[in-house]
Formats: sequence, structure tokens, C-alpha cells
Amino acid sequence: MKLQQILNEIYQELNPDFGQGKVANYIPALANINPNKFGMAVHSISGEKAFVGDVNENFSIQSISKVFTLALAMMECHEKVWERVGREPSGNRFNSLVQLENENGIPRNPLINAGAHVVTDLLSSKYENPKYEILQFIRKLAEKEEIFFDNDVAKSERETGNRNLAMGYFMKSFGNIHNQVRVVLDTYFHQCAIAMSCTDLAKAFLFLANDGIIPYSGEQIIEKLDSDRINALMLTCGMYDSVGDFAYRVGLPSKSGVGGGIVSIVPGELAICVWSPGLSENGNSYVGTKALELFVRKTGKGIF
Amino acid sequence: MKLQQILNEIYQELNPDFGQGKVANYIPALANINPNKFGMAVHSISGEKAFVGDVNENFSIQSISKVFTLALAMMECHEKVWERVGREPSGNRFNSLVQLENENGIPRNPLINAGAHVVTDLLSSKYENPKYEILQFIRKLAEKEEIFFDNDVAKSERETGNRNLAMGYFMKSFGNIHNQVRVVLDTYFHQCAIAMSCTDLAKAFLFLANDGIIPYSGEQIIEKLDSDRINALMLTCGMYDSVGDFAYRVGLPSKSGVGGGIVSIVPGELAICVWSPGLSENGNSYVGTKALELFVRKTGKGIF
Amino acid sequence: MKLQQILNEIYQELNPDFGQGKVANYIPALANINPNKFGMAVHSISGEKAFVGDVNENFSIQSISKVFTLALAMMECHEKVWERVGREPSGNRFNSLVQLENENGIPRNPLINAGAHVVTDLLSSKYENPKYEILQFIRKLAEKEEIFFDNDVAKSERETGNRNLAMGYFMKSFGNIHNQVRVVLDTYFHQCAIAMSCTDLAKAFLFLANDGIIPYSGEQIIEKLDSDRINALMLTCGMYDSVGDFAYRVGLPSKSGVGGGIVSIVPGELAICVWSPGLSENGNSYVGTKALELFVRKTGKGIF
Amino acid sequence: MKLQQILNEIYQELNPDFGQGKVANYIPALANINPNKFGMAVHSISGEKAFVGDVNENFSIQSISKVFTLALAMMECHEKVWERVGREPSGNRFNSLVQLENENGIPRNPLINAGAHVVTDLLSSKYENPKYEILQFIRKLAEKEEIFFDNDVAKSERETGNRNLAMGYFMKSFGNIHNQVRVVLDTYFHQCAIAMSCTDLAKAFLFLANDGIIPYSGEQIIEKLDSDRINALMLTCGMYDSVGDFAYRVGLPSKSGVGGGIVSIVPGELAICVWSPGLSENGNSYVGTKALELFVRKTGKGIF
Repeated sequence: MKLQQILNEIYQELNPDFGQGKVANYIPALANINPNKFGMAVHSISGEKAFVGDVNENFSIQSISKVFTLALAMMECHEKVWERVGREPSGNRFNSLVQLENENGIPRNPLINAGAHVVTDLLSSKYENPKYEILQFIRKLAEKEEIFFDNDVAKSERETGNRNLAMGYFMKSFGNIHNQVRVVLDTYFHQCAIAMSCTDLAKAFLFLANDGIIPYSGEQIIEKLDSDRINALMLTCGMYDSVGDFAYRVGLPSKSGVGGGIVSIVPGELAICVWSPGLSENGNSYVGTKALELFVRKTGKGIF
Repeated sequence: MKLQQILNEIYQELNPDFGQGKVANYIPALANINPNKFGMAVHSISGEKAFVGDVNENFSIQSISKVFTLALAMMECHEKVWERVGREPSGNRFNSLVQLENENGIPRNPLINAGAHVVTDLLSSKYENPKYEILQFIRKLAEKEEIFFDNDVAKSERETGNRNLAMGYFMKSFGNIHNQVRVVLDTYFHQCAIAMSCTDLAKAFLFLANDGIIPYSGEQIIEKLDSDRINALMLTCGMYDSVGDFAYRVGLPSKSGVGGGIVSIVPGELAICVWSPGLSENGNSYVGTKALELFVRKTGKGIF
Repeated sequence: MKLQQILNEIYQELNPDFGQGKVANYIPALANINPNKFGMAVHSISGEKAFVGDVNENFSIQSISKVFTLALAMMECHEKVWERVGREPSGNRFNSLVQLENENGIPRNPLINAGAHVVTDLLSSKYENPKYEILQFIRKLAEKEEIFFDNDVAKSERETGNRNLAMGYFMKSFGNIHNQVRVVLDTYFHQCAIAMSCTDLAKAFLFLANDGIIPYSGEQIIEKLDSDRINALMLTCGMYDSVGDFAYRVGLPSKSGVGGGIVSIVPGELAICVWSPGLSENGNSYVGTKALELFVRKTGKGIF
Repeated sequence: MKLQQILNEIYQELNPDFGQGKVANYIPALANINPNKFGMAVHSISGEKAFVGDVNENFSIQSISKVFTLALAMMECHEKVWERVGREPSGNRFNSLVQLENENGIPRNPLINAGAHVVTDLLSSKYENPKYEILQFIRKLAEKEEIFFDNDVAKSERETGNRNLAMGYFMKSFGNIHNQVRVVLDTYFHQCAIAMSCTDLAKAFLFLANDGIIPYSGEQIIEKLDSDRINALMLTCGMYDSVGDFAYRVGLPSKSGVGGGIVSIVPGELAICVWSPGLSENGNSYVGTKALELFVRKTGKGIF
């Protein structure tokens, strides 16, 4: 069966579920999203594409940005990344400070908030203008210049970002943030506030399905080994505190964001992005998770 | 390159490392093992086999037994397993009681000690003689009648098993152990004390590489979906508190034991067992982990 | 104003509150107590006595027994007690295992369950028959032979005591219980199940108001310094996880039990026992705490 | 024996210990203090005074300031204080964030850092210029205009205060800091940086030995009941994570600071301040604690 046909089926089957889950409401820019939105886009490394629903509508990528900054940091800093952040699942909420205290300011992995702060701090030490470099990196991956920060979202993030500030200052007290906390967090809030569509994201993540190479341009972004490793990290750490359940149900390296997006990789084959704003209690898109579960059942493309 | 040739190369390359790591010493039966032992066995679902080193020598399978009992429990109890145990990585040591307290006696997953107690308790409610049934199940998977409990090890486990007893009584205080704690733990200590060789284990795990079907006999042990799920659980929860690092380095669903064994699955292809008694600080075989890392690099058979 | 008159006033003022709080219901023997019971007894070192309410009715002393065993252990083992148990408030529930794990099996203080287990273990190493010795010690302090274990309560405690067993085995895994866990816990469950009345308890505690000397007999039970220290421990650790609030409201060294009893000391003057079975959320007698608060307000006998 | 004679004896006996302990070194202004300094001052409510050593030399009062701000907040906000902060010992390090997370941003008590932030936030909502009001309050208590902030210390505190900022933002994320975190912390860092001598502090604390009344002026600062309560809080929460040990050894309501000062109250009689910069591992003055222990042994003035 063709990918497009499978996506059509998923759309039909999930139609009754559209709007389920709870839209993130900690900032108005997220709270006001129409909960019935649903989009799913697939790009294969051989050039096959399939789309269904609101695939060209921009949404806030939020934590999905953590994979982009990690790839950039691995490109720039290689093994040094792991002197500053671990690579174990946290077994705790994504914004917990408890483990930071018990583990001397070293975050458990780069895909939870504290770990992403450290990654952004690494980039802040490398680049004059880290915000711009992150954006340019994503534009290159997605082959699209018209990707921007949503400044309203970034501003709201900063205004409600006290817990992120707490983490930043806490890690700084352990010496694990080298730049000014407010400056690092400003970059972090902006990377979370990047607006992209399902098609943009599926395309931008294709290098992780293709051993680190952008299939369109042939450019090697990161080593194959590092590409495998990022996929491993997504599988073990990418879905907040439900990585185990998600691996059990879906079984693909994935990263979700509170904007309702989830990106998944079928190594050697394709990248998927699904978007539906309603979240489960665990913070992952409710309908999005169901869509990916159906996709794996219908295609047999799970990695297990 | 043939699997046998790859195993030969690994053996050569790791030769200087043999004996590294720290042999588990909490019971004499483990402490007295020759640390220089090394064996690696591969069985493919198509019948290809490759062996190097001490592959026919029995060792204590310890926590590797948790996968057997989980498969048995999923076969017997299906979704009811998940009413009593979670499926998330713990982010804590394998024998921690902290999360049990915070999460009302529901262990994080079935591959840490507390979770394995619950699984054994489930089997204790199903079977008249759970010890015997577990042993028979493993004999069937390995196609070998001559697999036994090492009663000395079982006795030592019980004598040093105060922390396991603590967990058992703690969960019982939350109502999550239904049978007598001492009886459940006796079964648990025995399943840990089963003695098997690398060849036995590689063969016995082949059903997880083959959609739940024993390739020799064609018998469907568990559903394909459940087979995928056990692989997912091994990947996210199978390597104590270093699942993330192990996924990063090796990238195969795996389960290790303090006896120095590690079993890994290449879904759709093969099962591997490596044994080397010296452990890293994280409790996994030091040389064994290196061997699996080399195997994946040389064969490109990682799942990411 | 005379003590008797003050007790009469307290009885009048609290009359509308009798029956409030929630009677401990984890064992039938406690659950079936009439919640309207109330007694308050005061013994001074100069021989003055005052009583109101159900002061001669026996109730289960429960955790109040921890002070008796601590005094006995300090008498027998002196400073060695503190090699096995700390003397800091726990900041946690009385039956938490979290701190035990973080602090290597050394309980925070001898007035929480885990600490009392260690104290009973110390006595178990000293005495052939620790149960009998504990009972004899209390009989001497109360000058009364007719004090007994309530064997029904002891049996119920054992049957519902899985969490206590968990603690015991957990500490044993750290080497901090030297005798058999089941034997130590049997003594512990019995000491909790001693039945005494308000008058018995007020009399038995008088040595702590009198520099370690039983005023009736003149016998020096413990050094003055140790008597001061037990009072200090009661003040900082005696009221479960509400020691701060209790010190704030009442300001007397005190120990409560889930049977609804509270014993308080006015150093140099008197001992008080109040009993009312209904407990606050923090596990201390609701009306009993109010009675002591009134007593201190009316007499000005707080230590602050 | 006269108080002066007792202080002379203590000075002689402790002379060999002067310089022991470890001077706080997280800011230069504290690290450069001569570790051999020792002063001890006693003021009684009847006007008796006794002094020995460096009693007129200013040192940084640090956490001792938390008692002043608490008294001021109880004066201004009465019971509302307890809607925002608890009154239980923490059972954790003074600067832990773990409990804040588990208890939704409500600090355990007003004498640990997080609790003091909340108290300062309360005063920041009451006063136009809280820094000035706090200083004036202390000047009134000590009857001395020449008490000042040490601005170098305040500046250093701010520069090394990342962990305090982390706490502040963390509590703000729970809604338990109402003013701007940086502004509240600026006041907090200044109150810690107030420089006073042993004589100043002994005099300033006398109201807590005198039912809330400044004995010199007769002014009622706080109700007697609140004075008792602050003493209770000092006893259960005033000595970082060694309140139990300190109560056991000394048995007086006390508050220490990392500058090496400790203030103690003998209710109804006197206030004591001892200063010696070297700290024990628990953060309290090593020689200072010994001096207070000797004082209580020699005078029998412990509250137990």
C-alpha cells in the first residue's frame, strides 16, 4: 500500500478523535490554537512524499527544537557535549529540578529542558549570534528560507519561564552554564518559538533517517554514527516521561513538543511529522501518538 | 563478511581487555568465577550460527531471567500485566525503593528487581508450581532439557537478599504483591539462579528476533506485537541505569545480568549472547558491552 | 490556679470537640475504639496529681513506647546508640524509606519507626528476652505490675506490618539490623501493643521531668544529661512530621502514638498524658493537641 | 557563679580549639576573616552583661538575619505568614530545592533560605523600601544607629547567589514569590550582609528572652505568644540540618549564620551571642557550638 493511502486511512480512522486531549495553556499563543487541527506528513529519503490534513499550517515546534540544537552541538562540539550532559532517561517530569540537585547540575539528557539549556549554552559559547545560527541551520535542513521565530510566543515563554530560569540559575550554581543565564534562556525561548509546518519538519528531519546526510543536497550534516546516536537518544529520552510507553506502542525514535507536534524517524527510510494540539497527561499529542501507532501497525515499519 | 569471521575479529580485538571490570562479589558463587572468561554466540532465524570463546560454559543468568518471566506473564496475563507494573525507564538504580514509595508500590518496569517481583507474583497466582513452569518455558525456548537451577546460587541469593525482601514487603504494604513475599522471592531467587551458556541463551532468545515464533519449531510463543513490545522494553529498560548510554553505543534491545551475560536482539535477524564476568560501574559486563558495540559497528546491524 | 481546676476547664472547653479527628483504622483493635473518649492526667514531681475524663482506661501506647525503649537503650548502650541511629528530625513521613536509602540505612532518629527498630535491635542484642525486659522497665517506671501486652493488637500489627518488615529488611541489607528481622519486629510489634492508661503514662514519664530520677523511689534511671537529651529528641523528633507545628503551638517535649495518646514533659515540674483517639492528618491526636495547647496557655508552662 | 566568671572559664577551656573548623569561603569577604577570632556576649533581661573576646568586632550576620525578618513579618502580617511558608524542620540541606518541588513551592520553614526569601517577599509587599525598614528594625532592637550593610559582602553574595536565584525563580513559578525575584533577592542579600558584633546581637535578641518586649525601652515588639513561637521555630529549624544534634547538645533556641555567629535564647532570662568563624561540616560555628554547650553545662540553663 502506498504511503498516501495509509495516511488517508489514518485520517479517516482518527477523525472521531480530533480535538481530544488538552491544549497547552500556559501561554495564550498556544492556548488559542484550534484543538481540531490535525496534519501528518511523510518524506522518504527516496523522495516519496505523503500528506494529509493541515500539513502546511505553521505551529510552535517547542521541544522538537531540542533535536536541532543537539545535532548542531554534536556537529560543533562532538564528544565534549557529553562532559556537560548525560544520555539517560530521566524517570522524572521534563522540568524537574530534583535530579539536577542529586547529580550536581548535570542534566540527565539533552532532550529535557535542563539538558537543552546546556546544549544552547554550548552553542552560545561557539557562536556570536546563536539564535541566528540555529535558525539558519533549520532553514538549511528544511530547504526553506521562510522559517521564523514567533516573537509573541518567545515573549510569552520568557514571561512564564520562571521554572526554566530556576533551572538555569541552578545549573549555573554548579558551574554548568557558562554564559549569562538570561542570555542563554533568551535563545532557548526563541528556539522553542520557531514556527514550522508538518511538511517543513518531516523534510528537516530526513537527515536522521539517512545516516546524517540531507538527501536533497547530499550534504553530510553529521557522521552516520552521530545520526544513529541521536535516534537512540530520541528513542530513550525523546518523549518526556513516557518514553517507555511510547516505545512500547510506537517503537520509533521520536521527539514531541507541547505545541502538539511529534517527529518520528524510520531509520534508512523516512521521516514523519504529525501535529494535533491536544495533549495527553504525559505532555505528548494524544491524537498524534495514536496516528503514529496506526502508521507503524499498518506499515510494519517499527524498529523492533 | 560472515558472522563467524566477525566474531573471530571481535575476539582478537578484545583479547587485551579480557578480565577487565569487577566481578559481582555479593555471593561467593559469583565472586569465584574466573574473570577472564569470554564467550559470544549468535543464532540467526535462518539457522546461521557463530561462536567464539567459552560459549558452552554455564553461567548464572541472573536478571536476564526477567525477560523470560515477562514473556511468560504476557502470554498468560496479557494487558493485565500493566495494571501492576509500569513500562518506563526508572532513572534510578535497579534496586531503588525511592520510586516505589513515590509511585505507591507500582514498579517502573518489569526489568528492574521490583518489577520482576510483581511479574513473578503474577505467575505465582497462575501456576501451582511457578518455579517448575518457568524452567520448563526456558527449556522449550532453548530446546534443551538439561537446564537447571544452581541451588547454591539460589541459596546464596536468599541469604543476601534482604534488599529484595524489603522491596517485596514494601510492595505488599501497597497491595501489589498478592502471594506470600517469601514464597514469591524464593521463586525469584531461583529464576535468577538458572545456569545457562551463551549458546543456550542466544537460541532461547531467538523468538524475540522472529515476531514471537520459535524458528526451529515454528511455535508462536507470543503475538508479534508483544514480541515487538518486549524488544522495546529491553531497549528502554533493559540495561539498569545505563539504558541511554547503551542505546547510544550499541543500539540493540538487550538485557544484562550481574553474572556478566548480555543478550541482544537484531529484530528480524538474530539473537546474540555475550558473556564476560567483569562488570562496569553500571552493572553491565564491561567487555560484553564492548563486544556488542564492535558487532554493531562491523555489521551495521544497529536498529537506528 | 490549681492543676485540677485547669484540667476541669480544659475538659469543659474541649467538650464540643470530643470525637473529632479520624481514629486509626489499619487494625480492627484500634478502629473499634470509641472516638469520644478523652482523658488527661498530670503528675508533678512534688506529688501533685490532677485527672479528668477517662484517665484509668487502657489504650494502645503505640509509638509512645519508642521513648521507653530509647531510655532503656541509652541506659544500656550509652553513646553507642548514636553509631546506629541519627538524632535529626526527618522532614518526612514516619514510615518513609526514602531517607533510609539516601542515608545508607541509618535512620534519622530513634522516634520514627525505622529508628525504633534499630533501638529494639540494640536491646535484642543485650537481652535474652527483650520483650519481657521492656515490659518490666515500664512497670518499674509506672510502679505498676498490671501492665501487659495486648496480644490481639500485637498480632494485628504483625499481620499488617509489611511496611515495617520492608524497613527492617532494608536496614538489614545495610547491616544496620543485627538480629533476625522477624524476631526484632516481633518485639517491636509487642512494645507498640502495650496497653496503659493516662495515669500510668503520666506517672511512668515523670523521670524525664526529674533529671532521670523516679521521684517516688528516688532511683536514678538515666543521667540528668541523658534525660535532658531525651526531652530534646522528643521536642525535635517526637511528633511525626509535625514537630515544628507542635513546638510552635504547644512547646513541650512530647511523644504521640496512633492510639491517640500524647505524653508531654514540663522539665523540672511535671509529666502529662492526654488521650483522645481521633487523629489529625499528621497522625497526632486532634483533641489531645488542643488540650496541651490550652494547658500551656493557661499555665504558662511552655519551655519557650 | 557570675556570668562573667563562666564566660572567662569557657574562654580558657576553648582556647586550644580557637581556629578550628572551616571558614566559609564562597565569597572573599568571608574567606579572609581571621579564623582565630572568638567572642561571646551575654545580656540578661535584668541588665546583667558579660563579655569575653572579640565581642565588639563586626562580622557578617548572614542567616541570623532570618530571625529579624521573621519577627518583622509576624509583626506586620501575623498568621498570613503561614499561608506562604511552613514551620517544619526540613531534614535537608539549607539550600535544597528538592522539597520545594515536592511541596509545590512552599518552603518548609522561614529559617532556611527559601523560606527567608518568602518572608522578605512579604516585607517587600508591605514596605516601599524593605532594605531600609529591616535595617531600622534591627537598629531599634540593638539600640544602635551605627549598624550598616556591608556592601562588598552584599555584592559578593549577589555574584555567587545563583542557587538563591534558582530558588527564587522556582518559587515564583509556583506563584509563591509576588515581587520581582531580582528585587527580593537584592534585599535578601543585603540583610545577610548586615555587619554586627556579639554585643549588638545579644542585645538585639533580648526581646525574644523577654516575651517580645525590648527590656531597655519596654516596647512590645511582638506578642508574647509570637515570641514563644519564634523561639520554638529556632529550636526546631534554626541550625540548618543539625537542629536535632544541636538541641541534644545545647538545648537552647538558637540561630546560626555562615559568618560564624550563633545567637541563643534562655527564655525569661538572657540572650547570648557567640562568634567564631570556623564552621563544622553542618555549617554551624564549631567553637561557637562548643561554647554554648559549655555554657549550658556550667549554668544549667538548658530548657530541657
